[in-house]
Amino acid sequence: MHFTSEPRLDGGVIEREFTLGEIPGILWTPVSASASAPVPLILLGHPPLGLRKMHPRLAGRARQAAADGFAAATIELPGSGERPRWAALDQARADLRRAMEAGEPVGDDIIDALVLPLVDKAVPEWQAALDALLPLPEIGGPVGYSGGVISIGVRLALVEPRIVAAALFAGSFVPRAILEEARQVTIPLHVLLQWDDEGNNRQAALDLFDAFGSEEKSLHANMGGHTGVPQFAGDAAAQFFTRHLT
Amino acid sequence: MHFTSEPRLDGGVIEREFTLGEIPGILWTPVSASASAPVPLILLGHPPLGLRKMHPRLAGRARQAAADGFAAATIELPGSGERPRWAALDQARADLRRAMEAGEPVGDDIIDALVLPLVDKAVPEWQAALDALLPLPEIGGPVGYSGGVISIGVRLALVEPRIVAAALFAGSFVPRAILEEARQVTIPLHVLLQWDDEGNNRQAALDLFDAFGSEEKSLHANMGGHTGVPQFAGDAAAQFFTRHLT
Repeated sequence: MHFTSEPRLDGGVIEREFTLGEIPGILWTPVSASASAPVPLILLGHPPLGLRKMHPRLAGRARQAAADGFAAATIELPGSGERPRWAALDQARADLRRAMEAGEPVGDDIIDALVLPLVDKAVPEWQAALDALLPLPEIGGPVGYSGGVISIGVRLALVEPRIVAAALFAGSFVPRAILEEARQVTIPLHVLLQWDDEGNNRQAALDLFDAFGSEEKSLHANMGGHTGVPQFAGDAAAQFFTRHLT
Repeated sequence: MHFTSEPRLDGGVIEREFTLGEIPGILWTPVSASASAPVPLILLGHPPLGLRKMHPRLAGRARQAAADGFAAATIELPGSGERPRWAALDQARADLRRAMEAGEPVGDDIIDALVLPLVDKAVPEWQAALDALLPLPEIGGPVGYSGGVISIGVRLALVEPRIVAAALFAGSFVPRAILEEARQVTIPLHVLLQWDDEGNNRQAALDLFDAFGSEEKSLHANMGGHTGVPQFAGDAAAQFFTRHLT
């Protein structure tokens, strides 16, 4: 891992860009962390729209994490942002767009082609990021995962023992295979659902929530579209991490 | 309204029993309230099991309310506790029990007979309690409604303008007529659903949540049975009232 930017101070948080091989990423640490004990880490998941575009929202979530005493980090998803295009992913997105514009139901084959390769490729990258981040002196553990793509969060919750709690954003399509993996997840979960999310299937999200094997799982459904998560819902997710990471 | 007990100090709260005509009730005020400005009021809804039986849970919720700076009050439901038996309600309960023990689906007629007369009779009583409680010097406003019977909460949210926010517990049957009333409710709502509530119909609860006309409504679903609401879910409901009553 190489830091590629000077540290930038933004409120109570220090932001540093890094690369992990070819993968760009961003690390945010609370100002107080450098002078005190190592802090827990929250991995900030996000949709595959590119880190540059997502930066304002990610930085806002990182400031919240820092206020609660946590570091936060994210990496670019395969095929997104400044990473090389990924023809299969572009094709799957085009197929999805075509189906939605035609008003057709989005079939399982389209969802599988769109999401499963992304999960298969991204999850080992997030794990590699953990390998690189956790040895930093200002970062300890435990680790939480926050956000979408929810299928990436499900797979990470299942296969990565360093992640002890996850706040998942039910805002993307979920392949049948991921629904099956969800049954084996046992870590505490906090699932956010935007009830009127125009890009989401509410029943699929409820089915996924029902499937999780975790003894502690909470579903928080709020009004508004995909990007309309109310401030108090963010506060509740923050309290979830405070309960489980400290 | 007549106070029928000496004030009892329990932690940070003063508990006083009262009667309103033939209806027994309990008022809890924060110790600090008597010496300071009037405080908002939370009406504590509860299932028709009798105030004596419900007292430990109600007193716990009142202590939470007092810690947040709110008074809390409750009244006995018609046909419950020490109030006169109500033959029609007893009959409806017997019909429900018979249907459930026979493994039959609980039909709309049984639900209507069980819930609608209770709502029709209880709601004016809660309003009369508000008439009696709000003039007390230690109680100001605004007013919130918290708990079940959820159909009573829906009707109160619709017809009682002094109630500005409601945290409703989705743990009882909901008549079709109440579902229609829910569409006209506009105050902020916080709906608690126990995902595996053995005495509840999850889909009916989701349909009710969907029906509410409120611009701000949140569904918090958690694991566990009817009485297994986790502490952090109570905390979230408390924060909802702090947002809307202060």
